[in-house]
Amino acid sequence: MKLFRFGEVGNEKPGVILEEKWLDVSAYIQDYNEAFFENDGLDKLSLLLVEKQNELAEIPAGVRIASCVPRPSKIVCIGLNFADHARETGAAIPAEPIIFFKATTALSGPNDDIIIPKNSVKTDWEVELALVIGKKAQYVDEADAMNYVAGYCLHNDVSEREFQIERGGNWSKGKGCDSFAPLGPFLATTEEIEDENNLKMWLSVNGKMVQNSNTDQLIFKVPALVSYLSQFMTLLPGDVISTGTPPGVGLGFNPPVFLKEGDVVELGIEGLGIQKQTAKNWKA
Amino acid sequence: MKLFRFGEVGNEKPGVILEEKWLDVSAYIQDYNEAFFENDGLDKLSLLLVEKQNELAEIPAGVRIASCVPRPSKIVCIGLNFADHARETGAAIPAEPIIFFKATTALSGPNDDIIIPKNSVKTDWEVELALVIGKKAQYVDEADAMNYVAGYCLHNDVSEREFQIERGGNWSKGKGCDSFAPLGPFLATTEEIEDENNLKMWLSVNGKMVQNSNTDQLIFKVPALVSYLSQFMTLLPGDVISTGTPPGVGLGFNPPVFLKEGDVVELGIEGLGIQKQTAKNWKA
Repeated sequence: MKLFRFGEVGNEKPGVILEEKWLDVSAYIQDYNEAFFENDGLDKLSLLLVEKQNELAEIPAGVRIASCVPRPSKIVCIGLNFADHARETGAAIPAEPIIFFKATTALSGPNDDIIIPKNSVKTDWEVELALVIGKKAQYVDEADAMNYVAGYCLHNDVSEREFQIERGGNWSKGKGCDSFAPLGPFLATTEEIEDENNLKMWLSVNGKMVQNSNTDQLIFKVPALVSYLSQFMTLLPGDVISTGTPPGVGLGFNPPVFLKEGDVVELGIEGLGIQKQTAKNWKA
Repeated sequence: MKLFRFGEVGNEKPGVILEEKWLDVSAYIQDYNEAFFENDGLDKLSLLLVEKQNELAEIPAGVRIASCVPRPSKIVCIGLNFADHARETGAAIPAEPIIFFKATTALSGPNDDIIIPKNSVKTDWEVELALVIGKKAQYVDEADAMNYVAGYCLHNDVSEREFQIERGGNWSKGKGCDSFAPLGPFLATTEEIEDENNLKMWLSVNGKMVQNSNTDQLIFKVPALVSYLSQFMTLLPGDVISTGTPPGVGLGFNPPVFLKEGDVVELGIEGLGIQKQTAKNWKA
């Protein structure tokens, strides 16, 4: 199944894509939140589609597509998980996963504007494969880890490099600004993706391809990441894990290139749809 | 006012301490969550106490005291905010605040057990002054910052030093394990605390005082921290900010000392009550 959310900020509703139709399921499902995944929501949704398929209305044309899950308990990201991206940032290849959190207030729709923060001069892009947790995970073995994954989605791990690297301490300052986590357009449940380790991924800025890779380049794979993270914290249903970005970020250019007002960022992962954002300067 | 929460995990209810009585207000207030603070919950609660004071029942004896706020959108912590603690950990005095996130799944009651994670050998303590955000804060000036603070509470920023420092990347791995954020016993609203920059704070392990300081030693003060953080992310009502710990953590001992099963940790901050935790090894 392909799950999405639609509607204005703060009033988002759940939907399902069926035979290329974007259908409203809000009469039956409250939201794709922790309670949904925890209470077998995916199974119930699947049954609903069989029973009510002909009663579900298409969403209105032009409606905003929202992040494919609502605010989770956490967004955990993996740093430097592509060997060649680690090299372009000047960092060593990690011996074990590097992790950091994105503030969940950063979550936004796949086509919402990227807001360049006040005082930012180094806002950058990162196409990433994200996954959504389907079941509470604590000390999960790698062999069992896929049972805890609900599905996959596209994520632009937008990053302010000055805040991230030059302002002291860890990366949190440059990763969690508002609008820095466009997620979606949809969550593809695991059975939709034949092999998550062989998905083309790309990102362009103003029509020029800058990232062009494949998830087969990931150093630490999805089951390893879920297992690893679950050793340090409990992952809750609906939590988002983003697996890292390939080379081609603005910081890696010589000289570096960063987003400015009006720039258009497009990105995609095979089977997970496309995002398109316009960069806008922050305004009060 | 002094706000607390009580009851078993997953079924916590709100209460208020009035003339040393711990009163149940759950008939009138759903919880001390984002919506509560956002919708003038503190004013409504204040009015409620005038109108219904004689109708509020005391909570049952022996009931569990929970974290004084429910799971927030984020727990942001400040690192190395006491000059002498920075020195004991071998770190430089920061030029601007060091920040990191604690997974919100770490939240626990003030007297709940500290669960020593599987494979942990360096579980450590940190008494800290925490504050709770009362109003959505984005690019707030320092002079205006206190208008965004709902109140203060006691926090043990429990930390696994091997996970934090020796496992690659930033501190997130050692800060967000389950039970690593005992918060409370109560949230004291700002008018309860005459001067948050002059509060004695202490922590003992098995009756031996190990941390003994005062919030007057904070490098970056509360208004500066709220203003600073709001430059990098939107702070939501109910969000928790923990301001850093004074010297005397286990890592700073020579040789270092860490918690083992059965150890009893007690901590307090003047005007914010006392916590008491017993360390227990994780069990499946």
